[in-house]
Amino acid sequence: MRLTEENGGGLGGLLTRDVRAVTAGASVLADALGEQAVPVEAVDWRPPSGPGDADDLARDLAVVMGDRRRTEADAQAVRRMLGARPHLVDVRPAHEVLDIERGAFLHAGPPLTWDRASGPMRGALIGAALLEDLAATPEDAERVLRTAPLDPCHHHRAVGPMAGVVSPSMWMFVVEDAESGGTAYCSLNEGLGKVLRYGAYGPEVIERLRWMAGSLGPALRDAVRAHGPVDLRAIMAQALHMGDELHNRNRAATSLFVRELAGDLAEATGGAEALRFAAGNDHFFLNLAMASGKLSADAARDLPGSSLVVAMARNGTDFGVQVSGTGDRWFTGPAGVPDGLYLGSYGPADANPDIGDSTITETTGVGGFAMAAAPAIVRFIGGEVPDALAATQRMYEITFAEHPAFQVPILDFRGTPVGIDVTKVVRTGVRPVVNTGIAGRVAGTGQVGAGLVSPPAEVFTQALHALAEQATIGS
Amino acid sequence: MRLTEENGGGLGGLLTRDVRAVTAGASVLADALGEQAVPVEAVDWRPPSGPGDADDLARDLAVVMGDRRRTEADAQAVRRMLGARPHLVDVRPAHEVLDIERGAFLHAGPPLTWDRASGPMRGALIGAALLEDLAATPEDAERVLRTAPLDPCHHHRAVGPMAGVVSPSMWMFVVEDAESGGTAYCSLNEGLGKVLRYGAYGPEVIERLRWMAGSLGPALRDAVRAHGPVDLRAIMAQALHMGDELHNRNRAATSLFVRELAGDLAEATGGAEALRFAAGNDHFFLNLAMASGKLSADAARDLPGSSLVVAMARNGTDFGVQVSGTGDRWFTGPAGVPDGLYLGSYGPADANPDIGDSTITETTGVGGFAMAAAPAIVRFIGGEVPDALAATQRMYEITFAEHPAFQVPILDFRGTPVGIDVTKVVRTGVRPVVNTGIAGRVAGTGQVGAGLVSPPAEVFTQALHALAEQATIGS
Repeated sequence: MRLTEENGGGLGGLLTRDVRAVTAGASVLADALGEQAVPVEAVDWRPPSGPGDADDLARDLAVVMGDRRRTEADAQAVRRMLGARPHLVDVRPAHEVLDIERGAFLHAGPPLTWDRASGPMRGALIGAALLEDLAATPEDAERVLRTAPLDPCHHHRAVGPMAGVVSPSMWMFVVEDAESGGTAYCSLNEGLGKVLRYGAYGPEVIERLRWMAGSLGPALRDAVRAHGPVDLRAIMAQALHMGDELHNRNRAATSLFVRELAGDLAEATGGAEALRFAAGNDHFFLNLAMASGKLSADAARDLPGSSLVVAMARNGTDFGVQVSGTGDRWFTGPAGVPDGLYLGSYGPADANPDIGDSTITETTGVGGFAMAAAPAIVRFIGGEVPDALAATQRMYEITFAEHPAFQVPILDFRGTPVGIDVTKVVRTGVRPVVNTGIAGRVAGTGQVGAGLVSPPAEVFTQALHALAEQATIGS
Repeated sequence: MRLTEENGGGLGGLLTRDVRAVTAGASVLADALGEQAVPVEAVDWRPPSGPGDADDLARDLAVVMGDRRRTEADAQAVRRMLGARPHLVDVRPAHEVLDIERGAFLHAGPPLTWDRASGPMRGALIGAALLEDLAATPEDAERVLRTAPLDPCHHHRAVGPMAGVVSPSMWMFVVEDAESGGTAYCSLNEGLGKVLRYGAYGPEVIERLRWMAGSLGPALRDAVRAHGPVDLRAIMAQALHMGDELHNRNRAATSLFVRELAGDLAEATGGAEALRFAAGNDHFFLNLAMASGKLSADAARDLPGSSLVVAMARNGTDFGVQVSGTGDRWFTGPAGVPDGLYLGSYGPADANPDIGDSTITETTGVGGFAMAAAPAIVRFIGGEVPDALAATQRMYEITFAEHPAFQVPILDFRGTPVGIDVTKVVRTGVRPVVNTGIAGRVAGTGQVGAGLVSPPAEVFTQALHALAEQATIGS
């Protein structure tokens, strides 16, 4: 069954829809697509997969599957995630819209302390401290940061790419859903090269951030207010028909967004410069895709009994997930190092472990989950075109639904796999596929590559155990 | 062998590269792609296909294949077509750049007289006569047009979509190739709905054309001059990675073009309005893709002995082709009615025969030939995704080369099939696939749908015969 805009309410069928077995990494296009035609019965009681004792896992799984709230909670959670209609409604400074005091910083991923922070996270925090005039030198900044309040973006309805550092003077996209009343925030994308989010904090980085706060932000604000709400879901749906997957390929979405706002930006103060900046950066839309994902995922939070993943995020040290049925609790494990393509003379030894809130894209059915829509992504992250197709195909095994608005033309307009089910991940041993930029491990380096990575298996078994502990069994 | 930018000079191998047999119209994606893996030996001496006496055809074919100039002439023609580097360098009024006097009109396709002109062609000519103040009413205009000079766009290094009518006050894109010195022109796209190119000539059509000449054209001119030459080939190459095929799907190319010029347009007089107009029309780039195609095709003209097609064009009555080895001679046959999807309550009975110079896209390796890059096109022209893949696959049978810059990601970045060989069309019976808008047959109607069409077979057998008559046999 395919979920459409029309039958979005009837999720019962989705939750039991067919699962198809697909060979991963097949090297011939014909093979990879040929597999499609061979649906294989889902083996619900395959021995559960993950670290820890197999009997414990099987017991947790049985308990969670038997939770009598489960079916309705999952249906409701998925319905809310898919029903969100994110619109860009404003662009404003963080200190006006987020609960963040001068001297405090937000960061990507689950909670983190300075002593456990990786190189690029420390570099980005140093840059933000310099931007906020809390320190005159990087060394000063380090001293300040040892005791500065740090808090995940996710705790403030916000997300940030890579280090994801937000300080009060940075400007944020404000994304709202008129229907649900939800709001989400994301910082503005700085472009490529030496940028704060990859841990660079040199003078050119700080100068660019000051220009973004003083000129780009206000120009975007004026244009968005003149334009009226920008339907981000419509842009994302189009971009998936145009070869984006909306995590590492945002060329189409960026182009559509610039095109949509161009007339209003042309009439805004600083608009021509803002247009050139946005137009010069294929990743400009990423931060809007992330805010859209955050809005959609937050809509699905806090449904007791639901095993839907509502956040996947990395702080450069830990990979964390949150699940609808377990509230704000994080389940964490060590962040892996992505496998992919490296820039210039960089190699795996230069790579920091996985970092950033951008996995909110995979959490909501795009990014790695939509790579079949973006075959050209393999030129950026490595692998062959059939790998991109197979990655999407495999994700149908661990998700609740096919997205009603996000389609993959080459898969005959099938909706992207969306809504990660903790129980399916444990049952199948298939982990979510994430495509991501790779930051240099040394503070100040910047981006060194891009590739694929998976969450550590234990975050899902931990989440399963927590769901089991809270389960309501019997009638 | 794949022709790349690096080995572009070595076309010998291309001319004998493998041909693969592909089932057309297979209904299952896996089937259509599975065929890919089964190359079938090209049957060079399959009984030639086409109207007329089979023995005559076989004799013409033998003579043309035996032309001792053939191999070198084809290689040279293809090298020139693929080597063109079209850049948008200016935007200017037709009366300044084309050899066209007040009272004269250019039109799409091969030569045509008023008495043989179809409804939409007459409608567009009427509109142009009103625009030029040559008549006060449509009836007056018809009287004027009975004796007005009409000439194909193609005779003026220009092309025009659908009716393709150009009059002196209209503004033209000026596309040049700095290396070869070539120049080509195309009018500015009016958008959708009631527009001149589909034969509409109501007051809103004329008013829009006046605004285009008075405001849009000058704004684009100022922006292009401020920007410097815009590399159209680079935009087209990107757009093929983004789901365009550059004939009926130009959403990506339009977005990339608007994005490229946005900063300069923002600073031009009338720029904000021009940005909104261009951004509001997914087909805005079509006219630039056409001028690029015209430039590339013209570069390959006039090589005696070459059977490369250098123009395919329809005037709404006749479908005409020109071939490199036969100069400016047109080979014509009746234009077919496209098979496709209709808008609203329109149906096949409302359709005019095939019309427009936009087949210059298929002539140069995009449009119908690149539909595998644009699976979402089937939502516009009809059919299923595998049909789009199969259409491109089939065109490798009748073309000389794989395009060095235009790739299809889903076919593992294979270059698009480019350079139609008259002898291969006759030998295989495979005709070029064209995707096209469908004009209403009654003057003033506008667009009624979009679909697929083929040239009449006789244009290729006529061309073959002409090549045979001129062949140089022996050493």
